[in-house]
Amino acid sequence: MIVVMEAGATEEQIERVIERLLEFGFDVHRSTGAEMTILGALGVHPDFDPRQIELLEGVRQAVRVTRPYRLAGRGAAAATTRIELPGGVRIGGREVMVAAGPARVETAELLEAIAAHVAAAGVRLLTSSVGASGRSPYARQGTGVEGLRLLREVANRHGLLVVSEVTRPEEVAQAAELADVLRVGGRNMQHADLLGALGRQPRPVLLERAPGATQEEWLLSAEHVLATGNPQVVLCERGTRSFDAPGELSLDVAALVRLRRLTHLPVFVDPGRATGRRDSVPAVACAAVAAGADGVVLELHPHPERARVGGARALTPETFSVLMARLRAVAAAIGRQMG
Amino acid sequence: MIVVMEAGATEEQIERVIERLLEFGFDVHRSTGAEMTILGALGVHPDFDPRQIELLEGVRQAVRVTRPYRLAGRGAAAATTRIELPGGVRIGGREVMVAAGPARVETAELLEAIAAHVAAAGVRLLTSSVGASGRSPYARQGTGVEGLRLLREVANRHGLLVVSEVTRPEEVAQAAELADVLRVGGRNMQHADLLGALGRQPRPVLLERAPGATQEEWLLSAEHVLATGNPQVVLCERGTRSFDAPGELSLDVAALVRLRRLTHLPVFVDPGRATGRRDSVPAVACAAVAAGADGVVLELHPHPERARVGGARALTPETFSVLMARLRAVAAAIGRQMG
Amino acid sequence: MIVVMEAGATEEQIERVIERLLEFGFDVHRSTGAEMTILGALGVHPDFDPRQIELLEGVRQAVRVTRPYRLAGRGAAAATTRIELPGGVRIGGREVMVAAGPARVETAELLEAIAAHVAAAGVRLLTSSVGASGRSPYARQGTGVEGLRLLREVANRHGLLVVSEVTRPEEVAQAAELADVLRVGGRNMQHADLLGALGRQPRPVLLERAPGATQEEWLLSAEHVLATGNPQVVLCERGTRSFDAPGELSLDVAALVRLRRLTHLPVFVDPGRATGRRDSVPAVACAAVAAGADGVVLELHPHPERARVGGARALTPETFSVLMARLRAVAAAIGRQMG
Amino acid sequence: MIVVMEAGATEEQIERVIERLLEFGFDVHRSTGAEMTILGALGVHPDFDPRQIELLEGVRQAVRVTRPYRLAGRGAAAATTRIELPGGVRIGGREVMVAAGPARVETAELLEAIAAHVAAAGVRLLTSSVGASGRSPYARQGTGVEGLRLLREVANRHGLLVVSEVTRPEEVAQAAELADVLRVGGRNMQHADLLGALGRQPRPVLLERAPGATQEEWLLSAEHVLATGNPQVVLCERGTRSFDAPGELSLDVAALVRLRRLTHLPVFVDPGRATGRRDSVPAVACAAVAAGADGVVLELHPHPERARVGGARALTPETFSVLMARLRAVAAAIGRQMG
Repeated sequence: MIVVMEAGATEEQIERVIERLLEFGFDVHRSTGAEMTILGALGVHPDFDPRQIELLEGVRQAVRVTRPYRLAGRGAAAATTRIELPGGVRIGGREVMVAAGPARVETAELLEAIAAHVAAAGVRLLTSSVGASGRSPYARQGTGVEGLRLLREVANRHGLLVVSEVTRPEEVAQAAELADVLRVGGRNMQHADLLGALGRQPRPVLLERAPGATQEEWLLSAEHVLATGNPQVVLCERGTRSFDAPGELSLDVAALVRLRRLTHLPVFVDPGRATGRRDSVPAVACAAVAAGADGVVLELHPHPERARVGGARALTPETFSVLMARLRAVAAAIGRQMG
Repeated sequence: MIVVMEAGATEEQIERVIERLLEFGFDVHRSTGAEMTILGALGVHPDFDPRQIELLEGVRQAVRVTRPYRLAGRGAAAATTRIELPGGVRIGGREVMVAAGPARVETAELLEAIAAHVAAAGVRLLTSSVGASGRSPYARQGTGVEGLRLLREVANRHGLLVVSEVTRPEEVAQAAELADVLRVGGRNMQHADLLGALGRQPRPVLLERAPGATQEEWLLSAEHVLATGNPQVVLCERGTRSFDAPGELSLDVAALVRLRRLTHLPVFVDPGRATGRRDSVPAVACAAVAAGADGVVLELHPHPERARVGGARALTPETFSVLMARLRAVAAAIGRQMG
Repeated sequence: MIVVMEAGATEEQIERVIERLLEFGFDVHRSTGAEMTILGALGVHPDFDPRQIELLEGVRQAVRVTRPYRLAGRGAAAATTRIELPGGVRIGGREVMVAAGPARVETAELLEAIAAHVAAAGVRLLTSSVGASGRSPYARQGTGVEGLRLLREVANRHGLLVVSEVTRPEEVAQAAELADVLRVGGRNMQHADLLGALGRQPRPVLLERAPGATQEEWLLSAEHVLATGNPQVVLCERGTRSFDAPGELSLDVAALVRLRRLTHLPVFVDPGRATGRRDSVPAVACAAVAAGADGVVLELHPHPERARVGGARALTPETFSVLMARLRAVAAAIGRQMG
Repeated sequence: MIVVMEAGATEEQIERVIERLLEFGFDVHRSTGAEMTILGALGVHPDFDPRQIELLEGVRQAVRVTRPYRLAGRGAAAATTRIELPGGVRIGGREVMVAAGPARVETAELLEAIAAHVAAAGVRLLTSSVGASGRSPYARQGTGVEGLRLLREVANRHGLLVVSEVTRPEEVAQAAELADVLRVGGRNMQHADLLGALGRQPRPVLLERAPGATQEEWLLSAEHVLATGNPQVVLCERGTRSFDAPGELSLDVAALVRLRRLTHLPVFVDPGRATGRRDSVPAVACAAVAAGADGVVLELHPHPERARVGGARALTPETFSVLMARLRAVAAAIGRQMG
């Protein structure tokens, strides 16, 4: 933390600030110039609130210069962290990964049909959810562990890996046995016990950002998993709230680039969640890959118009195949390839 | 839901939309005018996504006209719901309530001193938290159930009721035995299992809004508690994110008024959480009461400058007393009184 | 500007940053600690972009510590600037002022009726607009200088002062002859030539914030008027965009308090523009006064339901009178009085 | 406008709403269902505020179903409008255009060097600004019409077209003689007289969005130019405010896709203005092209580290050339080509 004193701060005020900083456990380095005094405060708890100092008399500004996440921060890390999955699948390398599937596991037939399309398109990750369908207490209930078993079986049949959402700490152990990657939905991004449980199991975690969370909050949630013992976290941007998109979300590519500077963790983008509409998904998916995303999540459904959950954002199998070809071309254009 | 067809929509397109609506279980009422056809669709699942229809050919706009929360919605309710607490304390009536206390239960001495101030100021609700201090994995751990017992004892000694935060479903039962009101922090606003557990116990719930959540999401969380069986929910606005307050939150009084039109639930405001600074708290607290809030949460600390958690936003006991007098005058000015 | 070097920055990198700072005309003060080097850079153009330095190698962060507005900034000013109007009317003192009137000058009869109500309620400032009615190219045209003359005549008849909007630099001189305060609408907040013209005439300026502008941009616009020679600027908050108010605006009282810390200029609030609905105006007006606003703008109309412009946000004369009484009580509650 | 009455609305309330709608000049079509009455209101002024009706008793919701911009709206237009420039250059077709140049016209040597690079990279549009450098009253003054003449000469020498900003209505005529495209900065997006003057001259207009403006406001500004007589408007997205980018702007690609559905006008993106940092520009430019932008604005400077204005966001000539090659590949990947 850097503390900049007012030009007219008295020596007494400066002394008082230093005293308070020492009490809070900082090492203080004072630099007195002709026009202002600056205090460098080092070694403090990452959760310290600089306003605690800024409110003292004679202080103009107190600025945090360290990030509150140590493990998730880029630091000296030159490259994006690579995460190895079974079957030689890798996230965070030169390959851009796609995770595709239906919004929810409904019937075995449906899942089978979609998995076949996904595998045929060269995709390696099958994703779906078996929990409740939404934020409403009246949302449809999910298919639970039975749905997850089905997902596993179908994936095995098509040589696919399973990415599945977990919503409860007590479900993590079993999900870790059945899935290859555990996904945390935006609603649960700050569910501390869930993050802790995910930190104590061996599967990589795909961590969605909550639409109203800052990047710092998101990285603190990643830090929670990392600090608990699991170094394999992939971030998943799925849109943020903005004044200009009532009822929809923003997908800010400038923020994706900022995120890269802050963290070494791989970043996926979910264009369907962000836009909510299947006619927006292809362009946003291409933009995400062009902006450097390490992966894209795509939902598909044989009859999106009839799907009870997520239909508005699901691609038809045909549109999905066309988009996959286009994503391959975009990835190649920026020197990467679809994994 | 109202579906407005494009001026040039063909009869086939209209038929197809009607067919789809019927498949989804709606009753459809068609109104064909000279210039446009409008379809009224009734009776559907509150979680239905209108974009599912809007994406069909020939549709100009599909607009939801019912709210997805039934119990939390104002409906025909003329008045704010009243919630009765022990000792004749009542939330949601003509009285504006204050819940005051330290950010965290630290030591017995501290709590005792603050409780004495709170009681002396005529306040009836003692609030504090015994969980971890923040969103960081490195945040200080809380004092847990021991802290809560202490809070209860001190409150009893001063004739105060206890408002305490719960963060885990499994802690709800015990907290319900020790506290009079259970508080849900913004981070847990969408923690479905926690909301469910709170719906199955008898204590009123003070439900904070997450800073990035919409009012609709907030009311859906309230609905979760209500639909599970607990009709006693009090909302607590604690600020929302905005482009103009980097690192701080907005406290939008226009939104408070909109909220009144949407729900019959009482609404509290927490000016300390919203602004993060004790020098902003008095003016924002007065504004909240003037705008019609049913209660205000105030944090105080004998030595805010030294408090390790929440110090920047805690009032000194002196400022607190001055503010209480001012709030009394503001409440009287709009025809209410401090409870 | 404070430049914080990375912990591992080399001496060469530090030298290069210093060299660049000197080239840009800064005085540089170097402070080398055991763990990091901090450079204080003084004396630069207020428009300098710190990212220009932040992008240099070895730099962790470059933080501006001076505000880019010198005259509008609070600086050492202890009190809010007072602005004297004819007839002993004063803005920025202990009195909270009300400016009231119809959205637009339509007919003489209408204006006469409203002015009578305004004067009878003890209000001193009559406000209205004579320009086009909105942001659309199809908006109704205004009544122009004829409307302004009418406004002046009616105001004189009722002993009121005139607050009227100007939208073009070339209209400023005549408006300054006819009105007592010149108002700048949010749309024109960054109209440089208009701000310049207002700086070169003697009437106080009521400067609305654009709904998407930051407080800094707003204060830079005020600075433009001040720096051109007119020290009499009153800010008018009329709501900001937020994710939670599609089609409406936020009225953030926490921001009002922050603004006080940034500037010595008086601040008005326009609850009608902010909320767009007459049923939200009274609560928001009370909140604004309780939060410390120096004035409130209120629109009224004898038949709001029939008004072609601004009807949704106009109070009836009866509601207006009731609100005035309430505002008086709220002002008294915080130790002020309605002027 | 669609007016949905409350389920319990009385016949009298319905009659009263109809009466009011007729007074405002609407044609009303009533549809009475078993559970609710819906009124379709047609033929009204595009500036009408639906809240004027929503506030009437018995009304649940009043929803506008027509866009307030007629000429800028997509309507039945199948394709993006094409705009022809001299020398066979075309905006809005299959080609993606680049407009490149220095932020400001400073010296002839600088401009010459940059123009040479721009032309060598195959770019056809040279862009720069000759006005003041920023929003501050202390910003550097521009080089004015002399700068514009220089820009024209240099452009001619290199076979380039000129895109230059205009800020004042009275400068439009001369700028139209010297430049091929006239650019409106975000600050002037709602400068009505400037938009009017641009509507009365023959050059295409590149209209930046203000960072806090909604898409609707932006399109209303475009409508102003179109309705005044100039059908050649190109939109330029340069970032919007968001809670997550303090001091920076968001570049929302989901919004770009939404914009396509709303308007037939071509859309450019300015990644430098949006991100403010040259190290973010390449990824955001690639994303913009991948998302379907019709053009990209790029700033370059031989020595960005030393540039007094816009240095932080200016590319070096080398980075610019590398990016141009990459943009060509991305455009090809989505079936377009760089123009």
